[in-house]
Amino acid sequence: MATLERLFHPRGVAIIGASTNPVRIGGAPVKALSEFGFKGRIYPVNPKYDAIAGLPCYDDVSEIDGACDLAVIAVPARATAGALRACAAKQIPFAVVLSGGYRESGDDGAALEDDVRRAVEETGIRIVGPNCQGVLNLSDRLYATFGAIANEPDMAAGPVSMAFQSGGFGFTIALLCEESGIGFRYLVSSGNETDITTPELLDAFIDDPGTKVAFAMVEGVSDGRALQAAGRKGAACGKPVIIWKIGNSETGARAAASHTANMTGSYDIYQAAFRQSGILEVTDVEALRDCFAVFGAGRLPKGNGVAVITITGGSGIAFADRAVAGGLQLPDLSDATTDALRCVVPVFGSVQNPVDVTANLFNEVENFTDAVDVVLGDPSVDQLCVLMASVSGATAEAVSGAIVDAAAKTDKPVTVAWSARRRNAEAAYRLLESADIPIIPTPVRAADASVALHRFAMSRKRLAADTGNSAPVIGHELPPGSGALDEQAGKALLRAYGIPVTEDRIIPLDGTIAAAVNGLTFPLVAKILSPDIAHKTDIGGVRLNIADGPALAEAAAEILDNARNAAPDARIEGVLVSEMVTGQECLIGVVNDDVFGPTVAVGLGGVFAEVLRDVTYRVAPFDAKVAREMLDELRGRALFDGVRGGAPLDVAALTDVLAAVSRLAWDGRDRIAELDINPLFVGADGQGVIAADALVVLA
Amino acid sequence: MATLERLFHPRGVAIIGASTNPVRIGGAPVKALSEFGFKGRIYPVNPKYDAIAGLPCYDDVSEIDGACDLAVIAVPARATAGALRACAAKQIPFAVVLSGGYRESGDDGAALEDDVRRAVEETGIRIVGPNCQGVLNLSDRLYATFGAIANEPDMAAGPVSMAFQSGGFGFTIALLCEESGIGFRYLVSSGNETDITTPELLDAFIDDPGTKVAFAMVEGVSDGRALQAAGRKGAACGKPVIIWKIGNSETGARAAASHTANMTGSYDIYQAAFRQSGILEVTDVEALRDCFAVFGAGRLPKGNGVAVITITGGSGIAFADRAVAGGLQLPDLSDATTDALRCVVPVFGSVQNPVDVTANLFNEVENFTDAVDVVLGDPSVDQLCVLMASVSGATAEAVSGAIVDAAAKTDKPVTVAWSARRRNAEAAYRLLESADIPIIPTPVRAADASVALHRFAMSRKRLAADTGNSAPVIGHELPPGSGALDEQAGKALLRAYGIPVTEDRIIPLDGTIAAAVNGLTFPLVAKILSPDIAHKTDIGGVRLNIADGPALAEAAAEILDNARNAAPDARIEGVLVSEMVTGQECLIGVVNDDVFGPTVAVGLGGVFAEVLRDVTYRVAPFDAKVAREMLDELRGRALFDGVRGGAPLDVAALTDVLAAVSRLAWDGRDRIAELDINPLFVGADGQGVIAADALVVLA
Repeated sequence: MATLERLFHPRGVAIIGASTNPVRIGGAPVKALSEFGFKGRIYPVNPKYDAIAGLPCYDDVSEIDGACDLAVIAVPARATAGALRACAAKQIPFAVVLSGGYRESGDDGAALEDDVRRAVEETGIRIVGPNCQGVLNLSDRLYATFGAIANEPDMAAGPVSMAFQSGGFGFTIALLCEESGIGFRYLVSSGNETDITTPELLDAFIDDPGTKVAFAMVEGVSDGRALQAAGRKGAACGKPVIIWKIGNSETGARAAASHTANMTGSYDIYQAAFRQSGILEVTDVEALRDCFAVFGAGRLPKGNGVAVITITGGSGIAFADRAVAGGLQLPDLSDATTDALRCVVPVFGSVQNPVDVTANLFNEVENFTDAVDVVLGDPSVDQLCVLMASVSGATAEAVSGAIVDAAAKTDKPVTVAWSARRRNAEAAYRLLESADIPIIPTPVRAADASVALHRFAMSRKRLAADTGNSAPVIGHELPPGSGALDEQAGKALLRAYGIPVTEDRIIPLDGTIAAAVNGLTFPLVAKILSPDIAHKTDIGGVRLNIADGPALAEAAAEILDNARNAAPDARIEGVLVSEMVTGQECLIGVVNDDVFGPTVAVGLGGVFAEVLRDVTYRVAPFDAKVAREMLDELRGRALFDGVRGGAPLDVAALTDVLAAVSRLAWDGRDRIAELDINPLFVGADGQGVIAADALVVLA
Repeated sequence: MATLERLFHPRGVAIIGASTNPVRIGGAPVKALSEFGFKGRIYPVNPKYDAIAGLPCYDDVSEIDGACDLAVIAVPARATAGALRACAAKQIPFAVVLSGGYRESGDDGAALEDDVRRAVEETGIRIVGPNCQGVLNLSDRLYATFGAIANEPDMAAGPVSMAFQSGGFGFTIALLCEESGIGFRYLVSSGNETDITTPELLDAFIDDPGTKVAFAMVEGVSDGRALQAAGRKGAACGKPVIIWKIGNSETGARAAASHTANMTGSYDIYQAAFRQSGILEVTDVEALRDCFAVFGAGRLPKGNGVAVITITGGSGIAFADRAVAGGLQLPDLSDATTDALRCVVPVFGSVQNPVDVTANLFNEVENFTDAVDVVLGDPSVDQLCVLMASVSGATAEAVSGAIVDAAAKTDKPVTVAWSARRRNAEAAYRLLESADIPIIPTPVRAADASVALHRFAMSRKRLAADTGNSAPVIGHELPPGSGALDEQAGKALLRAYGIPVTEDRIIPLDGTIAAAVNGLTFPLVAKILSPDIAHKTDIGGVRLNIADGPALAEAAAEILDNARNAAPDARIEGVLVSEMVTGQECLIGVVNDDVFGPTVAVGLGGVFAEVLRDVTYRVAPFDAKVAREMLDELRGRALFDGVRGGAPLDVAALTDVLAAVSRLAWDGRDRIAELDINPLFVGADGQGVIAADALVVLA
């Protein structure tokens, strides 16, 4: 989306409401733009002044006499809509609205924000904000901003672009990362996001040739699928989208009929949606900074094998603990590799992975170089981490030089875990930095970063093979109105999508069982049939294991009685009868999420879902391969392989049904609010699955 | 244990094998001791020199002519034992053996280490090492060390003491922490721990009045109970013991008969033992550094309520996410508090917790001071975290001053999350540091540190009430020999400890069932009785739900047949018969761990234990309160409260049985290698528990 190009690379910038006071929101950008190296033209606009900071000041935006692609709006909230219309009339395509006083400050402010929205819609001008802290492009030294960041003239340029709603926290994070060696491309505080939103910014970051890593901190987005699209696009072109989602401590209570909707928190869905679309999630600054460092270097591993070269045994062990926990392997090195290492590593070191070259080897840099070359050349090694402890001075410089040389001969990622004090090792730091070798202060964080590299590389492969689910729309006709369907109607919907359901008969309200048992084999199940009774078991509306006709008649009478007593106003249609089914109980559900739309849940039934909430999610629609990933995320996944001599379950049938449910949820997204298939019985391999109940709630 | 006092506070230090070369292990300590401010006497010992670094050099340790409490041994491995004997003869009570070349370098080295051990045992000299990087006491500027740390004359003194086996990694961690504001008391690289071990060092740290926080990095210890004792002692006097356990990525496969032993990894037990004894576990440097910061300040919260004062909404949310996940609450502030806040907080801020005072308030320090005072005074607030973002300059100084003043009026912990660049806020940093207000760079890390403070405070309370389990020894006579007991003998042991077991009868080898069924009510269970068949189900040795006498006879015959076919060499004693029991299946087990000795495991049965490994541990013996903590750690703990209308289970009976098993495991620690009670059936509240099987393996 090249359409934001001029926002980040304006030929000229107007500051509407410019001020001579450099701590005011109208003064800070004038000062920062004029002093920090911005090469474009700067047009302060304010009828009160003739000149600001040595620049001629314009009475009105219409008077601007040169190319201008961006307006910084620093006038009060009530004047903003007018200012935007004036900018649009002057053909200025973008504005950054720094002013506050909109919906964050009550009803009056919300009305002013509506005015701003109308100005945007009517003129076509695109805006960042309002109530934001501005936009920076550090490659062009564009500081369209105020506050602490406008006092940092020396922020390093680099390959990382960031968007964040909260300017104060976002810029604090940027400063922390910059302090530890990260350079930035675009920094955007998006504020109220009345027009340009986080997903659109991420998309623009990925399109930008100067950006290698795109990050956003979000409290919430309105269009979750746009966020996913940005993640997928980033994965496709090798630029990870990293997100820190804040605001997750509320458990998100819903008032819903289905079990799925009741147990699903919005953060669960965010996390699953991130995994589904290759988005990396972080939850603190250090992990984020380290991802910036390793992804900024631009190399990805081809597999899960990581080699470690260390000078202290303890740090190698700490790295291994964490790397293995994160899904990496420390592969055995080949005989050729260990033989070669034996020629250069002291006997009290180790030639096995983690390779302990001992502190001695740092004093014999030729041998160290050989060791790094040999390890990087081993075919089982997909990436390398060198643990340099706090080695300083000339030794650090020699070692760094050797690492830089070795890394230049390969495209495998090479990371250094190193914590020398900068003042004791400046030359070595510069060597590594100029060669784009990421430096991470501790072995554990280096392991986490290696894990992140691997995860993103795997996501890329997975997404490249992801065909989605473009099965044709079935168009099963749903009854009019809203509310729950009865079980029979719910099962009809499932059947239309090829999902096996039990063969059901109905005992009418007079209790005649003859037609119901015709062709069914005992034992049977009987359940109340009513669109108004979602939780049938709770009201005594279910009887299992019914052995014969007389027992069925008795059960039907009792169920009807129970239902009438418990729910006197419910529409009761009869008693549904079907054969007993066995197999592993599972639960499949659909919620129609405000952010992500129709989303499918799956879990193992019984205690797994109810006590452990062992449930996983994917945004619909998706194919059977994605469904398989869902199953692999369950803590109880071993059950699918058969436990204690049990047969493996029919996972192929289960994943087909999951994909079908995802299609159903997507096709019916305008009508279907919730859906539960609980229980779904999964048979042994080859024996299929069958839905024994269905609850569909229409919106 | 004041006995290590002179190790850390020697009146004089001899360097045996002193060198004029300051990068050699015999030269570095001479240089560091003489130049970095050590006030005691320094005695270089080496017949080759007359003087080193301006100090007279002694030909032999016997010639030392003043008080000397510590010898630094820097002679080759083969000369160390002799040097230690010479030191002992000179009445030097402690030595630090820097030399390497012992068991880490093969059999010859191991023999030399045995010589060292003998010298220690025979003379009574106490040693740190060998193969270590030395001992520092930064209060006394004692640098009995070599390597990178011996080139850091300005390491700050402070309240943190650290022990670590790996010198390279340990000192790297110390340097990283010191760089970010942590001061140290004692630093000990313990190397091979031939004499003085990590638990003894931790114990000495806790006894030291200058130490407020004790930390050890361990790969493993030989005496886990000594580690626990240090943790308990630290908790009793308010000094946390923090441990980073490395080397956990191997899953620790055991070859054992019992289910418990097979599924238990040694790291599981370490972690449980840490929790049990109030030890805080960390797994990376940042968390460790932050614990040093907050515990070094010396304040603990009284409850789980944390208040946040922030100037950016986003950081307050990020703090809350993590604090709540860690078990803290952000309590609602009282009406009086919010009323008072309304007088000083701008309307676009928030007077609810997290309190958003907005960046404006930093410019009105009197109002900010009022806000901090009011929040700290709220009775629901047990600790406070102020999120200062990256505020710098004079504003930071004023804000810091206000925080220092407010903190001085209370004993509640006050933590600051702040990441201003030091050069932009030096005065403010100094103000906070001199008042012992911990500074943590990010809100998320601050939340983690607040959680750690709360956990330790809770551990203190819990441990203060922990009575252990001093029930009298039962002294049940176990049969001689080793190997598994049969089920009957195993149950007899349980019964002796008051643990309810099923009433069992035996069908003899001739299959006569008459006596067996006498007094039992069908349905019955029949199981093979043999000390040689631990996994009865696997060989067809168990039949459940036997309805009547003929079925029992048939089942018994079949079981005997199956057993003879599957295990022709097994000693078969008959078929055990008992009534069917119902209830929630649980598993209780005992392993006799190499490090911690007898340790009890408990889990929910069936899929919980087998698929999810939802099992928790405590080192035996312990009382029923500790047993209750075990149950609360299970992921499936909700089952004890009753699920979907089920009755609550008899937790009191279960915890009593767990305490009894722990007593049994402790009493029998010399004989009992493993024990499984699987299944143990837990009835509804008031209906007790009953062990349906027992496997006891003697060592």
